[in-house]
Amino acid sequence: MPGRNHLYVPGPTNIPDSILSAMHVPMEDHRRPDFPDLVKPLLEDLKKIFQTQNGQCFIFPATGTAGWEIALNNTLSPGDKVLAYRFGQFSHLWIEMANRLGFDVEHEEIPWGEGVPLDRLEARLKADAKQDIKAVLICHNETATGVTSDLAGVRKALDAAGHSALFFVDGVSSIASIDFRMDEWGIDIGLAGSQKGFMLPAGLALLCFSQKALDTRQSAKSRRCFLDIQDQMTHNAGGYFPYTPSIPLLYGLRKSIDLLLGEGLPNVFARHQRLAEGVRRAVKAWGLELCARDPKWYSNTVSAIVVPQGYDARDVMHYAYHRYNLSLGAGLSEVMGKVFRIGHLGDLNELMLCSAIAGAEMAMRDTGIQVTPGSGIAAACEYWRETAPAVKLR
Amino acid sequence: MPGRNHLYVPGPTNIPDSILSAMHVPMEDHRRPDFPDLVKPLLEDLKKIFQTQNGQCFIFPATGTAGWEIALNNTLSPGDKVLAYRFGQFSHLWIEMANRLGFDVEHEEIPWGEGVPLDRLEARLKADAKQDIKAVLICHNETATGVTSDLAGVRKALDAAGHSALFFVDGVSSIASIDFRMDEWGIDIGLAGSQKGFMLPAGLALLCFSQKALDTRQSAKSRRCFLDIQDQMTHNAGGYFPYTPSIPLLYGLRKSIDLLLGEGLPNVFARHQRLAEGVRRAVKAWGLELCARDPKWYSNTVSAIVVPQGYDARDVMHYAYHRYNLSLGAGLSEVMGKVFRIGHLGDLNELMLCSAIAGAEMAMRDTGIQVTPGSGIAAACEYWRETAPAVKLR
Amino acid sequence: MPGRNHLYVPGPTNIPDSILSAMHVPMEDHRRPDFPDLVKPLLEDLKKIFQTQNGQCFIFPATGTAGWEIALNNTLSPGDKVLAYRFGQFSHLWIEMANRLGFDVEHEEIPWGEGVPLDRLEARLKADAKQDIKAVLICHNETATGVTSDLAGVRKALDAAGHSALFFVDGVSSIASIDFRMDEWGIDIGLAGSQKGFMLPAGLALLCFSQKALDTRQSAKSRRCFLDIQDQMTHNAGGYFPYTPSIPLLYGLRKSIDLLLGEGLPNVFARHQRLAEGVRRAVKAWGLELCARDPKWYSNTVSAIVVPQGYDARDVMHYAYHRYNLSLGAGLSEVMGKVFRIGHLGDLNELMLCSAIAGAEMAMRDTGIQVTPGSGIAAACEYWRETAPAVKLR
Amino acid sequence: MPGRNHLYVPGPTNIPDSILSAMHVPMEDHRRPDFPDLVKPLLEDLKKIFQTQNGQCFIFPATGTAGWEIALNNTLSPGDKVLAYRFGQFSHLWIEMANRLGFDVEHEEIPWGEGVPLDRLEARLKADAKQDIKAVLICHNETATGVTSDLAGVRKALDAAGHSALFFVDGVSSIASIDFRMDEWGIDIGLAGSQKGFMLPAGLALLCFSQKALDTRQSAKSRRCFLDIQDQMTHNAGGYFPYTPSIPLLYGLRKSIDLLLGEGLPNVFARHQRLAEGVRRAVKAWGLELCARDPKWYSNTVSAIVVPQGYDARDVMHYAYHRYNLSLGAGLSEVMGKVFRIGHLGDLNELMLCSAIAGAEMAMRDTGIQVTPGSGIAAACEYWRETAPAVKLR
Repeated sequence: MPGRNHLYVPGPTNIPDSILSAMHVPMEDHRRPDFPDLVKPLLEDLKKIFQTQNGQCFIFPATGTAGWEIALNNTLSPGDKVLAYRFGQFSHLWIEMANRLGFDVEHEEIPWGEGVPLDRLEARLKADAKQDIKAVLICHNETATGVTSDLAGVRKALDAAGHSALFFVDGVSSIASIDFRMDEWGIDIGLAGSQKGFMLPAGLALLCFSQKALDTRQSAKSRRCFLDIQDQMTHNAGGYFPYTPSIPLLYGLRKSIDLLLGEGLPNVFARHQRLAEGVRRAVKAWGLELCARDPKWYSNTVSAIVVPQGYDARDVMHYAYHRYNLSLGAGLSEVMGKVFRIGHLGDLNELMLCSAIAGAEMAMRDTGIQVTPGSGIAAACEYWRETAPAVKLR
Repeated sequence: MPGRNHLYVPGPTNIPDSILSAMHVPMEDHRRPDFPDLVKPLLEDLKKIFQTQNGQCFIFPATGTAGWEIALNNTLSPGDKVLAYRFGQFSHLWIEMANRLGFDVEHEEIPWGEGVPLDRLEARLKADAKQDIKAVLICHNETATGVTSDLAGVRKALDAAGHSALFFVDGVSSIASIDFRMDEWGIDIGLAGSQKGFMLPAGLALLCFSQKALDTRQSAKSRRCFLDIQDQMTHNAGGYFPYTPSIPLLYGLRKSIDLLLGEGLPNVFARHQRLAEGVRRAVKAWGLELCARDPKWYSNTVSAIVVPQGYDARDVMHYAYHRYNLSLGAGLSEVMGKVFRIGHLGDLNELMLCSAIAGAEMAMRDTGIQVTPGSGIAAACEYWRETAPAVKLR
Repeated sequence: MPGRNHLYVPGPTNIPDSILSAMHVPMEDHRRPDFPDLVKPLLEDLKKIFQTQNGQCFIFPATGTAGWEIALNNTLSPGDKVLAYRFGQFSHLWIEMANRLGFDVEHEEIPWGEGVPLDRLEARLKADAKQDIKAVLICHNETATGVTSDLAGVRKALDAAGHSALFFVDGVSSIASIDFRMDEWGIDIGLAGSQKGFMLPAGLALLCFSQKALDTRQSAKSRRCFLDIQDQMTHNAGGYFPYTPSIPLLYGLRKSIDLLLGEGLPNVFARHQRLAEGVRRAVKAWGLELCARDPKWYSNTVSAIVVPQGYDARDVMHYAYHRYNLSLGAGLSEVMGKVFRIGHLGDLNELMLCSAIAGAEMAMRDTGIQVTPGSGIAAACEYWRETAPAVKLR
Repeated sequence: MPGRNHLYVPGPTNIPDSILSAMHVPMEDHRRPDFPDLVKPLLEDLKKIFQTQNGQCFIFPATGTAGWEIALNNTLSPGDKVLAYRFGQFSHLWIEMANRLGFDVEHEEIPWGEGVPLDRLEARLKADAKQDIKAVLICHNETATGVTSDLAGVRKALDAAGHSALFFVDGVSSIASIDFRMDEWGIDIGLAGSQKGFMLPAGLALLCFSQKALDTRQSAKSRRCFLDIQDQMTHNAGGYFPYTPSIPLLYGLRKSIDLLLGEGLPNVFARHQRLAEGVRRAVKAWGLELCARDPKWYSNTVSAIVVPQGYDARDVMHYAYHRYNLSLGAGLSEVMGKVFRIGHLGDLNELMLCSAIAGAEMAMRDTGIQVTPGSGIAAACEYWRETAPAVKLR
């Protein structure tokens, strides 16, 4: 098909050409004497993305799913109690994994469209007088529903309860796009994948451990080898890795971090907020609702849009892809057929999202949903115009 | 700036990723024994793009401007009379070149926004009883005004006048995008650049000569060396070039031709027509006029849009570029400040053009032009929806 | 430094430009409807590389180390007895992993430079009357010493003993370079990484399971989640993956398999044999010894070359890298300082290896080792000349 | 064929990966407001490569052949007398062009293998009392024979004769590889192509004009348009070009100049000298002669090697290419079949040239030429070892 594919799933995200070029390199020896000149600054600068000075970062040749396992198995022992909330497909999968890995998972069902209930979390922690709960697992941005939870609030709940549980955060679809403060919020493990805010292909699990989390590795009895942070620590100390790393992804990550720090994290977050708000204006102009039930849950990286009763969101995706070469995110599991998703994270600008909005509108109309032609674009673009930085007159 | 640049100038055009990859090759010897396996089919398949069986194609390591000179200097002698029409910047420049190269140029001034006046052309040719006019220079698609002239009509005029003048066509912004029939229309030289419908970087002048045009090379007294087709003919016969060719561009051209023939030229032309019509619907919905004064002149590769009195089109371009990373085409020379242009040729689809339309609308509103928000997108998208190929139900 | 780096470590290997280009692609949705058109043929054609019709292949977003863990954890339960041989760093690491994962590892120490002792293996299996040994772990090509073991012989030993133990093979530095016959040799799990014979960056663990191995997944009590083949099986059935795959690596693998099958596996193996033999001729001409103690152990993918007493192989590597931009493989662990290694696998030809041989010679002479200048090249090149395919006279 | 092609023709040269990546960019508008930020420093820094402060550089979208024509047509009028020397295929072609373009060419035949005869040049200039000779055309490095002429000597001859003729230099295979001093040597036009020392694909004619040369453009009556420097000057002043430039080549040139200035021109020249000397040592060790008849003519960018009587150098090239994937340079015209050439310019290091030397040796032996196996490598490598920069002990 002529022309580009329009990729607006909430990850993997569009890769900037500068990153694609940075990854197009001849192979090289990962044991060469000057390899640490690449690795050490990379591990150090990655801490800036996690907004930490005290933590320690890891780059595993794996995916975000592995990140979940790395967090659990390097800190806990089978049978340990962990607390979690299920409010979407990805919070669900982490819970499921914790069960399979032999932990004692206590979880609460939350309506899909909401996030972590801070008051009930605090109450539960306070009730845990013996501090049986060893870790709290929080999905910062539930990609399936477009819901962002309040991490600072989780920390407050832990502190209010005087609870020492480890605080693990899945930041796969938030880190590098939505504000995430490892140190300030007392997060013990933050984890991300390379294919979302980092604008890279999948293939890296990026983690940050607090010292407290690191210290538990000695007592953790969960069996692990490929995903053991100890091997990484041993080799990272010298600027190497325990197994052959992906050279292209390391150079890509170097470029990604340079782009993010070059733009400035506050600017990156503000850009995501502004682009997301434009999409939300379009949704409102269409007369539709988000899956996220309240503005406080609105995600700046993905919007899950509820189609009206009587329509199947899969038809919207079908027409979008086959007629207009537009990839939208599907509704998963509980919300299958009920929502479609527009990912608005990574390397994006206003006019790119115009393609997503215009295409979604066309596909909805093809499906029979009576949104007004041009209404989404009008609302989004007027918002973006009003909030665009001033430029000098010609 | 994050996100892609939105490139909608009427050339150079967006390069498909598959062509960029085809050009990313190690260097190789252009005199290697099997180099003709690349060159010979390339020259042969290029004829299909020019829709010729009798013509001979040339690939010069130069640009479209060189193409003009190649046409003139390989066929004519200084002092020879040529007939041309000026109705835009590019028809103007060809005329200017012909003057500088010592030809006797007779030209008619045509209002910018119109094309070749077939009746007057026929009359002029009939009046040239002695056949002093050696060549007629036609700019098929005047890129500056978005006007396409009727080449079949030019041939009819020549035939009606029984005139033997050579028929030269600048097809830089038409060939590979708008129907162009070398043999059927009796064109003697068609010329293109690589950076428009061929979706490549600039750097190749692509020409096709009829046998009649080829035959004149012996008598043509214009001095030439780098741009002499004889050297190309001598070396092309063996599958080589007289000077070092650009290896990446040859592989890029190979891929370009494969893409064009793979889509099918009629489909390529129909796609350009349909995409262009969507843009024109947007212009109409905005309440604006095209520079092209009549639908018969409408170009399917570029639309020059007239801004209302009291506004400067350069402000639209200024805001488009600096606020939204959108590159629009400028009004050139006579229409400077009066029009801006949207190029809609090459590797494009509907949702790419939505970026151009939405961005143009935003920039016009920034300029103070009171187009209705979303109106352009609504009109274009509804047209595209109605004309999109049916897809199977899910 | 001007000019290319000369990469002759035994992995990661030189990536052909055609694979680099195949990986330079825009991101795409791994859940798009036509994604299975990429995935299903890939999984099917991968079987051809493992030379299997009955097995089932897996593509994990991880590395060869993960492959070891996938093999063990998906088939066995903690406490299960496995039998292994230690004769180099990689056979050592697999044994170490099996211990860490809780298996009962029985291993025999073999002199580094030898491979699997088939007679003792057969004796041990025969002695295991109760069939307590659940799996035999074989490192096909010990990358640290340049030793290839006889897999057909292992199968014979198992059969002779009438033993039903699973037969697991680390083929990281053999598969796609050295003959490897999953079905014919009754291998139960073969595993490879992407960064050796597949000529890709690291980042994929490529495995093949026999039906017998697959069947054990139900009874295997080892805890696993990220590396569980069941999740892959569930999603692979539809042509998808359980977690976001690396799009570039999938396209790279597609190209890799196309290159390998295009050349023909027997030709690939013969090329590796011939190139390796040239290197061995050079070593002999230098008057040096291989770490591999007998021709029957000689590896066709890597040669570990013993430096004379009184010299440190690390000096050779040091000069090679810093003076001549040549990356050689280090001696690891027991053979550190005693050997340096030339990797001769992947996308290679004779004249590429001339750089490795000439550079190794220069670096040895810089170190003080008195090899005769040009002797290695003379021996290797004469061998290659004599065995080069005939070409037509000019 | 597996493995890389070994490209050792004297241009086009191997392109460094960093330049290939720099050229792999999305298309962009060559009239964008910030385009001069790319163009102006490029034109300025290009002057450093020509070693000029007073000259003005031009970047034409053409080739070195066009460069010859640009030099002649922008400064002279048909009938003007020029003086030249023919001692190889490229000095021949420039003379032929000057004839075709209508100049009065006086040339002297020099044995192929020698360069400009300074004493006879000086004598001829002194004899030209009326200063009829308007320009002297010098081929700095005759690529066909591997002969470098003495430009400082030419300037001395002009000065000794008190002659005001323009001094034009074809530096296609010298500039950026061999010392070339525009200002110090009073050169009036220096010209290069992109595909040799600049390590780019063909497609750019790079020129530098002295003020004296620039001034002649007004009086020069040669007809020109595409290759007219006036159009370039008009547009370059604002940071633009008169016709669409190749965006990839501009970024490639940016990278090329950065690499050259980063290494430092004196280091670039010294590296070429040292690599060339290694090749010459190999030739001597083979017992063969260079086409260049005296060390003072030896070229540091290309060596033309004479095969012994009774052999055809084309056989050497044939075997090199078809058996070993090695591209050597052919003997052209007068020396066809008598010499083959090794290009040693551009992005090269010692071990790359080892491939060329070893491959040439193999191909000569295949041809029946009895060079001693390994002798060339031994001589070259020992020279390179002795002259390699010291490195710190490990």
